Amino acid sequence: QSTLTIFGVLDASITSITNRAQNLSPLGGSVSLSRTDLANSRSASSRLGFMGQEDLGGGMAAAFWLEAPVTNDDGATGIATFSRRSTLSLLGTFGELRVGRDYMPVFVNDVLVDPFSFNGAGAALTFIANTGSRLDRVSRANNSIAYFLPPNLGGFYGQAMYALHEGTKQTLWTTPPPPNSTRTGRHIGARLGYAKGPLDIGVAVGRSTTGDDYSAGTTDKVQLASLGLTYDVNFAKFYAGVNRSKAGRDYARPPVSPLLDATLNSALIGVTVPVGVGVIRATYSRAVYDEHLNDNRPDPQASKIALGYLHNLSKRTALYATVARLRNKNGAAITIGGPAYLRSASLVPTTSTGYDFGIRHAF
Amino acid sequence: QSTLTIFGVLDASITSITNRAQNLSPLGGSVSLSRTDLANSRSASSRLGFMGQEDLGGGMAAAFWLEAPVTNDDGATGIATFSRRSTLSLLGTFGELRVGRDYMPVFVNDVLVDPFSFNGAGAALTFIANTGSRLDRVSRANNSIAYFLPPNLGGFYGQAMYALHEGTKQTLWTTPPPPNSTRTGRHIGARLGYAKGPLDIGVAVGRSTTGDDYSAGTTDKVQLASLGLTYDVNFAKFYAGVNRSKAGRDYARPPVSPLLDATLNSALIGVTVPVGVGVIRATYSRAVYDEHLNDNRPDPQASKIALGYLHNLSKRTALYATVARLRNKNGAAITIGGPAYLRSASLVPTTSTGYDFGIRHAF
Amino acid sequence: QSTLTIFGVLDASITSITNRAQNLSPLGGSVSLSRTDLANSRSASSRLGFMGQEDLGGGMAAAFWLEAPVTNDDGATGIATFSRRSTLSLLGTFGELRVGRDYMPVFVNDVLVDPFSFNGAGAALTFIANTGSRLDRVSRANNSIAYFLPPNLGGFYGQAMYALHEGTKQTLWTTPPPPNSTRTGRHIGARLGYAKGPLDIGVAVGRSTTGDDYSAGTTDKVQLASLGLTYDVNFAKFYAGVNRSKAGRDYARPPVSPLLDATLNSALIGVTVPVGVGVIRATYSRAVYDEHLNDNRPDPQASKIALGYLHNLSKRTALYATVARLRNKNGAAITIGGPAYLRSASLVPTTSTGYDFGIRHAF
Repeated sequence: QSTLTIFGVLDASITSITNRAQNLSPLGGSVSLSRTDLANSRSASSRLGFMGQEDLGGGMAAAFWLEAPVTNDDGATGIATFSRRSTLSLLGTFGELRVGRDYMPVFVNDVLVDPFSFNGAGAALTFIANTGSRLDRVSRANNSIAYFLPPNLGGFYGQAMYALHEGTKQTLWTTPPPPNSTRTGRHIGARLGYAKGPLDIGVAVGRSTTGDDYSAGTTDKVQLASLGLTYDVNFAKFYAGVNRSKAGRDYARPPVSPLLDATLNSALIGVTVPVGVGVIRATYSRAVYDEHLNDNRPDPQASKIALGYLHNLSKRTALYATVARLRNKNGAAITIGGPAYLRSASLVPTTSTGYDFGIRHAF
Repeated sequence: QSTLTIFGVLDASITSITNRAQNLSPLGGSVSLSRTDLANSRSASSRLGFMGQEDLGGGMAAAFWLEAPVTNDDGATGIATFSRRSTLSLLGTFGELRVGRDYMPVFVNDVLVDPFSFNGAGAALTFIANTGSRLDRVSRANNSIAYFLPPNLGGFYGQAMYALHEGTKQTLWTTPPPPNSTRTGRHIGARLGYAKGPLDIGVAVGRSTTGDDYSAGTTDKVQLASLGLTYDVNFAKFYAGVNRSKAGRDYARPPVSPLLDATLNSALIGVTVPVGVGVIRATYSRAVYDEHLNDNRPDPQASKIALGYLHNLSKRTALYATVARLRNKNGAAITIGGPAYLRSASLVPTTSTGYDFGIRHAF
Repeated sequence: QSTLTIFGVLDASITSITNRAQNLSPLGGSVSLSRTDLANSRSASSRLGFMGQEDLGGGMAAAFWLEAPVTNDDGATGIATFSRRSTLSLLGTFGELRVGRDYMPVFVNDVLVDPFSFNGAGAALTFIANTGSRLDRVSRANNSIAYFLPPNLGGFYGQAMYALHEGTKQTLWTTPPPPNSTRTGRHIGARLGYAKGPLDIGVAVGRSTTGDDYSAGTTDKVQLASLGLTYDVNFAKFYAGVNRSKAGRDYARPPVSPLLDATLNSALIGVTVPVGVGVIRATYSRAVYDEHLNDNRPDPQASKIALGYLHNLSKRTALYATVARLRNKNGAAITIGGPAYLRSASLVPTTSTGYDFGIRHAF
């Protein structure tokens, strides 16, 4: 027998965010930009998907999962892509073989220890600190082949992923030279964990090839490492996670002035407390950039606190409210959303504050 | 319990339209452009959607509606967007709270009194006269929050909508100046009606902010007002509607030469007569533009007659045929579809005539 | 009663292709470009669709079919279009009337005699030889009206299609002149066949208007003719097909130096042999271009052999492996996929070799 399921999440909220820049000029004071949106995905990512499974006999099964992001506030994004997940699997006693587009193992390890699941005002700095830079967190990989351990290993779980770069190889150097970027797009990663009783601890590593130039003999990469754990003591569940991302460049021959590595270290601690049909969520997260420059400039960094309450109207529908405040130091310019900081020679990003008040419905 | 429904409409027709321009030059005569298409949506808009509802207990429910436009004649538009409707609702004895992208109240009031539901050759001038101008009818609003009265109010019904502009606010004037268009996209509207026995009468108003410039101190808006009614006397149902749309500009300080208002007044009368398993539909509609120019130029205007027959093969499948003729005066250039009029110094748009012959199927 | 079905195919494979160009310079040797992908659609085209049928009584039915291509390896293509098929049908004892976007009759006749169904490494030269040229095979037509014979004609089957060009017609010549391309997009085609016992034989013709210029008095067209047959003798099934495509230009008045016709003749023979739950597939195909130039240059041509095995894990899930080798002569540059040949004055495309190893799952 076989199944076909249509599933989804729609999440809508009133979201208001104010991003303040301090004025270092003699005028003093600060300038704030703020925006109030009817937003989507601030508690769980809005999506629509199709999944199915077919029993092949002998403990084997084939399964697929196609999941599209949806922007339900404006209807602009329908099922144009299955960019959230697009996989085909073969399952058996050996575990699961899964091919297509899917989350990278490090992302899975990181997101599971954020009580706000990297969504909305509450999203931990682990996630939001490294977008838009050399360290840009890429959550998913295309053209990947992944293996998942079977579920019955006494609490141990694990997964490994290899994503093909799909670059062109050439047997001889010619004029014109071969196309560049032959290794760009490759990802290799793995995650291993142990979940038993109240404890769930996981560790993951990954390496993405983000650029390369055959003629220059360079390869750009981002290396990721993550440790996360949760501990559940009935009246509360505790969360902790650390992530280290390093962007670097490998050279075929030693360069005179190499591009320096850039590192981002982030950590979060969180707690969720069930209260009747609801749950209180709180997190504190930090992120520190290190450009490894040989000067004595202090490292850009940010810290964030988030507090929220989610009220379940049913198993599938909930109301939620989240407030958060993020503080930048030493030149960091991270926001919790909304308009980018107003920046100039004398305007320096400081705090980003905001709230989400919304409803989410799963089907 | 909860439901998930996939629904849709596919409508295909042979549609042929001829648009004639009169030749004012000494040559005389006229030049016609005509086109015959395999068209879609000429009787009902082709679409594919997903909707669902979950009972939350206590008379409450959560519901969603995601509806995509589909071009079934060429397959070019799949479910890329949910631009027809994309909403999440909370329902109760208090009525319905609905957020996302949806029809504006004025549009709902207008479309319900057109026997051709603004589709195809029969679509009333109320709809087709104000596309492509400052008065451009926008049928739907993004980022909206709407409230609907509950259904059990002795025949009264009503709805109100507020759509967020999602513009950025700034606390202080700075150089560079703040982004413009901070209020553009806002819509506020409402509809109130009464339906009892043979009568259904509704009135609606709306105001859209279509542009603004903070530095210049101007705000562009379109104001809409609509009155519609239907009266059902078994052997026939009568329809009547009027709409007034006004595009204007507000100024922070009185300007020397302000932009003049532009107004579009439109009206329609119609009738449907059931004949066996089919229904005959006929409408007459008029539209008059007023640019409020201080000259004595006559107002551009158009009138249109449409006649059609829809033959139900089942509750969900029907064949239909519609013929229509539209006449422009004083420089109006409205068509019922097809190629735009050939225009030049001596070529003046006059009539647009055409027919649809098609099939529609709902699922 | 009526039905609504969601259906699809997901096909993923490791696909590796090497395209070799011979070096005619004194250096000799060759240069190969190769690429290994996680590919999709190499055994059956990945897709997701919605179809339904409604019984109208009296032997009549209404039916629809909306089918989207899906790229499951990267999730980049969701249900953005229904470009694989988008049709609405009326069925009865008279046969089927079908309107929208669908396969052209010649394509249907060709694809049914390729054991690899024009997918992946095994796709016959009939399909891959005429992409990217004046002879470009267009598989489907928009805005088409098709008629299919009913199924109970003693083995005879047939279909005819007319696709509207949807160009604009003008009653008088004017300045500026009327838009060109008024007939471009038109297609007319038909297929007739006979299937009884082990034999299935079909013939099809088609004519596509691919361009036209009213001012110059020219019309470009591609004329297609196809003959295909299969013969099933239990232990094996044999396949054979020939296709002739001719691109030409019609002139309103005889030109001094007309554009010469270009012709592509292709043929394939194939066999499938059931082996337990699997099936062995093998084909040999050839394609010869004739530019009808009045010189004595030999015609560019290519030949291809493909061998594969498909192992059914269930009715809906299969593993497959295919290897293929394609050889170009006299300047042809066809590949079985992968990177384009490296070409220069001295580099001449020769062979394209590759394999698919994958899984396909239908739902």
